[in-house]
Amino acid sequence: MMDEIQKRLLAEVADLHGVPEGAYNIRANGQMAARNTTANIDIVSKTDVSGIDIYIKPGTVNESVHIPVVLSQSGMKEMVYNDFHIGEGSDVVIVAGCGIDNCGDQDAEHDGIHRFFIEKNAKVKYVEKHYGAGDGKGKRILNPGTEVYMEEGSYMEMEMVQIKGVDSTVRDTKAELAAGAKLVVRERLMTHGDQNAVSGYSVSLNGEGSSADVISRSVAKDNSYQKFDSRIIGNAPCSGHTECDAIIMDKARILAIPQLEANDLDAALIHEAAIGKIAGEQIIKLMTLGLTEEEAEEQIVNGFLR
Amino acid sequence: MMDEIQKRLLAEVADLHGVPEGAYNIRANGQMAARNTTANIDIVSKTDVSGIDIYIKPGTVNESVHIPVVLSQSGMKEMVYNDFHIGEGSDVVIVAGCGIDNCGDQDAEHDGIHRFFIEKNAKVKYVEKHYGAGDGKGKRILNPGTEVYMEEGSYMEMEMVQIKGVDSTVRDTKAELAAGAKLVVRERLMTHGDQNAVSGYSVSLNGEGSSADVISRSVAKDNSYQKFDSRIIGNAPCSGHTECDAIIMDKARILAIPQLEANDLDAALIHEAAIGKIAGEQIIKLMTLGLTEEEAEEQIVNGFLR
Repeated sequence: MMDEIQKRLLAEVADLHGVPEGAYNIRANGQMAARNTTANIDIVSKTDVSGIDIYIKPGTVNESVHIPVVLSQSGMKEMVYNDFHIGEGSDVVIVAGCGIDNCGDQDAEHDGIHRFFIEKNAKVKYVEKHYGAGDGKGKRILNPGTEVYMEEGSYMEMEMVQIKGVDSTVRDTKAELAAGAKLVVRERLMTHGDQNAVSGYSVSLNGEGSSADVISRSVAKDNSYQKFDSRIIGNAPCSGHTECDAIIMDKARILAIPQLEANDLDAALIHEAAIGKIAGEQIIKLMTLGLTEEEAEEQIVNGFLR
Repeated sequence: MMDEIQKRLLAEVADLHGVPEGAYNIRANGQMAARNTTANIDIVSKTDVSGIDIYIKPGTVNESVHIPVVLSQSGMKEMVYNDFHIGEGSDVVIVAGCGIDNCGDQDAEHDGIHRFFIEKNAKVKYVEKHYGAGDGKGKRILNPGTEVYMEEGSYMEMEMVQIKGVDSTVRDTKAELAAGAKLVVRERLMTHGDQNAVSGYSVSLNGEGSSADVISRSVAKDNSYQKFDSRIIGNAPCSGHTECDAIIMDKARILAIPQLEANDLDAALIHEAAIGKIAGEQIIKLMTLGLTEEEAEEQIVNGFLR
């Protein structure tokens, strides 16, 4: 049974206002709170470590899996291993996410390793949202590790979002692509207060015709610190594009370290990055429309992170 | 006295076909071969280490200093420290460069640390060319370190060129800019055979209104390897732009790691990078004009590095 706080967290991280359709596994304060499987999607608890295996049968289309995690207990620290086995030719949506509400004085931490084994020609849309709330002194800490293994002709789109309330995060994403595989990443990140966010991507384009498009947009407010470290490695005829755009505000600091590594004559790799503050004329324009300076800033930031 | 090989190296690295005008210091096989000073530019040998101090009086304008180095002796290894003291309000051209002709079986290596102390409102154009020749088995190794300290309102333009024949190089350039100072870097690099080139820039924009524009163009042929590591650090209201464009050929490998670090709200930093091979249509176009494939490639590469 979930309480009101947990239900609110669930709405934030998984857009869930009730029980989702399709397969799901809801984890609350380190325990399984609810699970549903379907004819094509099985969910099995791991026996050696904490976590689950999600098995999606070959050819499964138009189905979804929700695996949100909520933490509302101060002092809780957990480490979870979730493996996704996505069968050949399937086309599915996976929604993960973690919400922490920490009203206490002790840190609350959720660390997870998600591994995706995507078989030939399978398509996955993966959405991961991280959210923190609660007015306790204890920190809200989230360290997601993601590993993606993509077979020939497979496609994955990752939407990685951390908008609010996470005090410290180290996000580490690795992907290995076989021939014809395509990875699209859209990251949106906002830090405020004294938050700290480190986000690293390492994408290896190993097969002919593989491609990656990694775009990160972030806003750093107050005294927060962000570090981006994205590496695209072209080991075959392939194409890779990565882009980091960041808005800096207040006394925040941002470090962007994009890496392009071309190990093949036919690897075409492109990177763009820009860090800057909101242009003054944008704020003035919105202020002439009747907004306060704060409202104008907020509107620009929201538009940038949409 | 310089021999024919040394004179040829001199022409390659300093465009010198005789004795230059203005101040100069020519170093050949570890010894001073010739020196000239002027009323405004003094050159003094260091006594504690190998190298020279170049003193340019405040207000010196339209003068030049040439300090080429040539090595034609296999097995020679030297380390040189040259310091440039550039007086307030001066406007000078400095041409450095090193040519190695190694016909022997032992490695020939020239390592140098160049330090530039650029006083208020001084302007410097600095040209550094590296070149290797000779058919010996011994390697031609060049490791230049460059440190640039720029006072208020100063300007420096660096043209860093390594086109041919250097087997191994680690190029390390650091710059610290005070308010209103501006640094412009144009690097052109070509590696071939089994050559190895590592090029690093670290530019700290410490003063209000300081700016940097670092553009690197490179071509990696055959089995060569290149690594670029350029970091722009904005510690004040400033603007920085860095761009790495690289052409990859044959079995070459390239790693580009540009870093943007914004530590100030008003730091505006931009980076662009692209690695790719010569577009097929460009080659075909030139071939329809009568060039062979090799000639077409050469023309495209030369145009790219001009």
